[in-house]
Amino acid sequence: MEKIIGLIDAPFTPMKANGDVNLEPVPAYAAMLAKNGLKGVFINGSSGEGYMLTTEERIQLAEKWVESVPEGFKVIVHVGSCCLRESAKLAAHAKEIGAWGIGAMAPPFPKIGRVEELVKYCETIAAAAPDLPFYFYHIPAFNGCFLPMLDFLKAVDGRIPNFAGIKYTFESLYEYNQCRLYKNGKFDMLHGQDETYLPSLAQGGAQGGICGTTNYNGRVQVAIGEAWAAGDLARARELQDYSQEVINVICHYRGNIVGGKRIMKLIGLDLGPNRVPWRNMTDEEEKAMKAELEAIDFFNRCNIL
Amino acid sequence: MEKIIGLIDAPFTPMKANGDVNLEPVPAYAAMLAKNGLKGVFINGSSGEGYMLTTEERIQLAEKWVESVPEGFKVIVHVGSCCLRESAKLAAHAKEIGAWGIGAMAPPFPKIGRVEELVKYCETIAAAAPDLPFYFYHIPAFNGCFLPMLDFLKAVDGRIPNFAGIKYTFESLYEYNQCRLYKNGKFDMLHGQDETYLPSLAQGGAQGGICGTTNYNGRVQVAIGEAWAAGDLARARELQDYSQEVINVICHYRGNIVGGKRIMKLIGLDLGPNRVPWRNMTDEEEKAMKAELEAIDFFNRCNIL
Amino acid sequence: MEKIIGLIDAPFTPMKANGDVNLEPVPAYAAMLAKNGLKGVFINGSSGEGYMLTTEERIQLAEKWVESVPEGFKVIVHVGSCCLRESAKLAAHAKEIGAWGIGAMAPPFPKIGRVEELVKYCETIAAAAPDLPFYFYHIPAFNGCFLPMLDFLKAVDGRIPNFAGIKYTFESLYEYNQCRLYKNGKFDMLHGQDETYLPSLAQGGAQGGICGTTNYNGRVQVAIGEAWAAGDLARARELQDYSQEVINVICHYRGNIVGGKRIMKLIGLDLGPNRVPWRNMTDEEEKAMKAELEAIDFFNRCNIL
Amino acid sequence: MEKIIGLIDAPFTPMKANGDVNLEPVPAYAAMLAKNGLKGVFINGSSGEGYMLTTEERIQLAEKWVESVPEGFKVIVHVGSCCLRESAKLAAHAKEIGAWGIGAMAPPFPKIGRVEELVKYCETIAAAAPDLPFYFYHIPAFNGCFLPMLDFLKAVDGRIPNFAGIKYTFESLYEYNQCRLYKNGKFDMLHGQDETYLPSLAQGGAQGGICGTTNYNGRVQVAIGEAWAAGDLARARELQDYSQEVINVICHYRGNIVGGKRIMKLIGLDLGPNRVPWRNMTDEEEKAMKAELEAIDFFNRCNIL
Repeated sequence: MEKIIGLIDAPFTPMKANGDVNLEPVPAYAAMLAKNGLKGVFINGSSGEGYMLTTEERIQLAEKWVESVPEGFKVIVHVGSCCLRESAKLAAHAKEIGAWGIGAMAPPFPKIGRVEELVKYCETIAAAAPDLPFYFYHIPAFNGCFLPMLDFLKAVDGRIPNFAGIKYTFESLYEYNQCRLYKNGKFDMLHGQDETYLPSLAQGGAQGGICGTTNYNGRVQVAIGEAWAAGDLARARELQDYSQEVINVICHYRGNIVGGKRIMKLIGLDLGPNRVPWRNMTDEEEKAMKAELEAIDFFNRCNIL
Repeated sequence: MEKIIGLIDAPFTPMKANGDVNLEPVPAYAAMLAKNGLKGVFINGSSGEGYMLTTEERIQLAEKWVESVPEGFKVIVHVGSCCLRESAKLAAHAKEIGAWGIGAMAPPFPKIGRVEELVKYCETIAAAAPDLPFYFYHIPAFNGCFLPMLDFLKAVDGRIPNFAGIKYTFESLYEYNQCRLYKNGKFDMLHGQDETYLPSLAQGGAQGGICGTTNYNGRVQVAIGEAWAAGDLARARELQDYSQEVINVICHYRGNIVGGKRIMKLIGLDLGPNRVPWRNMTDEEEKAMKAELEAIDFFNRCNIL
Repeated sequence: MEKIIGLIDAPFTPMKANGDVNLEPVPAYAAMLAKNGLKGVFINGSSGEGYMLTTEERIQLAEKWVESVPEGFKVIVHVGSCCLRESAKLAAHAKEIGAWGIGAMAPPFPKIGRVEELVKYCETIAAAAPDLPFYFYHIPAFNGCFLPMLDFLKAVDGRIPNFAGIKYTFESLYEYNQCRLYKNGKFDMLHGQDETYLPSLAQGGAQGGICGTTNYNGRVQVAIGEAWAAGDLARARELQDYSQEVINVICHYRGNIVGGKRIMKLIGLDLGPNRVPWRNMTDEEEKAMKAELEAIDFFNRCNIL
Repeated sequence: MEKIIGLIDAPFTPMKANGDVNLEPVPAYAAMLAKNGLKGVFINGSSGEGYMLTTEERIQLAEKWVESVPEGFKVIVHVGSCCLRESAKLAAHAKEIGAWGIGAMAPPFPKIGRVEELVKYCETIAAAAPDLPFYFYHIPAFNGCFLPMLDFLKAVDGRIPNFAGIKYTFESLYEYNQCRLYKNGKFDMLHGQDETYLPSLAQGGAQGGICGTTNYNGRVQVAIGEAWAAGDLARARELQDYSQEVINVICHYRGNIVGGKRIMKLIGLDLGPNRVPWRNMTDEEEKAMKAELEAIDFFNRCNIL
């Protein structure tokens, strides 16, 4: 199965001031991401507030993104939900419209406690789009599914034919490496924590990733991989340290989903508010965040429209 | 606002062998519950696998239950979901079809970390059906929302006009009592753990509850309240101890949602399988559970069709 | 084995301003507790900052308490520690000086993850004082030992001859009752959460308890049991509600160990500061706490010297 | 302040079959560690079952290690305990006998919840040996102290004069790097997870570490750093992957404290059993572990006596 090379962005979902989904900015958004070095998008995931969207909205977004991306730019549709019938419908739809792949995180309810439950969950979704690569999105901090991923890989191997790999958004580079080494790299282990891309590269060789901060800091994040590939460790470190500085700022503003989405407005691509129960940033918070970003010269290093 | 007196049942969602929702058993189910002393139902909640149903299925179930219940038998519709637009739609629909009330648990994703987020979440839903009483369903073990409920009551008081109270499914009888005492009992604190109904009565006086095991053990559970009201402590204790014995059994079979639903088949009202990712009981497990139930003379004490 | 009837107090450890242990107030402390209806003390436990004392200090305190108590007033010595050799030494010493019993909570390090580990731990300690009743002190919030207590009872039964029972400081009245019912009450299940004494009585009949707030609020706590025994439910409820009001106050001041110890000063028995890493109350905090206590008429209901 | 270069070993505590501390093997142990490339020892810590030792045993071990090590080989004494008076005594003793430094993890009881509490705890210990460098040992999985380490560094800076740095045994290489960058590397950030040494080197430049598996796998672990320093990434990766393979094995046998200690016997330096509540390995388990280690050719790569 094809492995992803380079970085995939996890876009925010554009919304109008009243909270409605806003499809209009998608083409410009897609063009901006491609221009800044991203290789695709993983839509309707956590950054995209996928769980806060109706099924119909998720369908419309998937269609718009597939229509909007340049040739060769991958669209992976996150189709996970608590309701497998919705997920299967979204998976079949993703196939139908020509998306490149699909993915799903573990459902937050009921909390998954056993590998067998997670396999069954993924199997049901993957079977609804058997020709598309399926990625499991491992982000236990969001759904409480702290299962051992190596055991999970062993369990899906030979059982889910279109299982492609894992978007690994967890701190254990030990487990990550063990998964990467499984059957000499049988599965595609996509790195999923922008703040530790360099250490992961050191351990694991060429690879792809799915990123949340590349929406606004993609040039820097892409350049980490390039510097590493070019053997320029000093530059890779400088860039990774800078990536962390940006992440330090968004941590002051409720993280990427809230703080990061608001940065988009500051770089010229207003994507509107977050949905309840996220607490939207106030104007004062926006101003303070802007000052923090200016202090690290962010607006000269961020993505270019 | 009217307070609930007596016990409300949280029904399972009947399903066909293929996993489709099965509306057909609902009238018989409703009649059975009324016959065994229950005062209403809280549908599409955790026992009802509400999060695993599509919005359309939840709508159909709500309609069927409202049509099927006897005069004066309350239908409260759980309308919580991760997507507030779906929840608001379900709330408005509940009002439209003449449901008695609505309720919602905290969303499992994103995990609610602040009282203000929870208030906003509940406010948005409650506002979609402003004439119906709204109950918050507190079950932190399922969604990680371990916020202090007294602070929550203070925050909703005066802000959500149709806020009725809390279905309290948590172990702290201290917090439960503090909530009950708030403004001399301003809010309706519905007890939500069948295994500790008697201790709760001792502390709190007459009150209602919402129960999961009353689907099959309602006669016993109702009788606890009656014995207590009649001043017969010895009998109340015997009944509560028995209620715990039944709960001991379902704890061996993945709890009420899985084990309890299968008991329905054993008492003559087959409600079909659970949805993935719940692991359905095997036939061997069913047989073993039946033997455990026989050993405590369950089939002579359980609900009568 | 004898079962404890009535309430045992968990005393604070008196300290001098410089943090040294202060044995001098112990006789007056013991007399005060007896005068206010307590039946014994459980010393060097969590309220007594036992883990923050040297082994030598724990020995001196045990000796002083045994010397100081009136006839028939029980002294149970908490001997738990991370180092079993220290614990065994303390247990043997307790026997030697004529203490009534011993107890131990699970060690906080290493965190106990299996029933077998906990049994072995308790067995080793209990064997060092085979003639004294041994109580396991279950307080998982303090040490992370969330093991099922019924399984634990089954495992110690027949293996630890002097195992007397459990001081149960956890919220599950369901598990508490199941333990109480084990072999028709074979083991002594001491209630350990002052805020839910009444609900526990309703469920379980006559019983003992070990209490932290009885240091200053013992008259009220003892009266709950008396009112219940006399069949005066209304009064029992009023008293339990009042007990909760006092607990509400100490919750504002870092709980019983910090806030409660400072109350002792306010009622006339200054026991000095807490040890690091506990944060001692400031004078401003003391003043604010005093005002809160006055507002609930505490100083007319509290213990009398 | 001097920064540690190279790897410090965290030794096990040798015990006799009856569980008594056994000082006899210490000189051979120290010589073996030096011979295999280690630069010092961090004694009486988690690998050394420090919390399960009496104060007197800890004192004897410290004396024996200081006497036994070769010239220039550092002895850092872990002096942490729940009782600060014991810790201060151990710190003063470490100074007195000529240890190189001291360290302490957060106490597991009471659980530290605030930076100020942790600072006060460390300050009290560090002040008892003001001429020795003090290291905080951050291992939150063992004591529940999940505080942000950058905030902690800011709080100790200027307040604890002999604060040297942190032994960082946690998964977040993001936080680790942020601490490392604080004031251009003011504090010594010792890496503390053997399985991710290479990724950490990639991110952070030359540095030291404190290791648990170097007791038996020190040659490999030391060689990772050498390969990296020599610019041989392929070899560094091969070695780190191998290090993880060894760790995979010990994870099957209750981790380093239990499984790792038993490996010492297999390489010819029997250090005896673990203390309760650790569950010692059975002979069958030892045999199975040996087979697993042979399968990865461990006995040709492990430490040499």
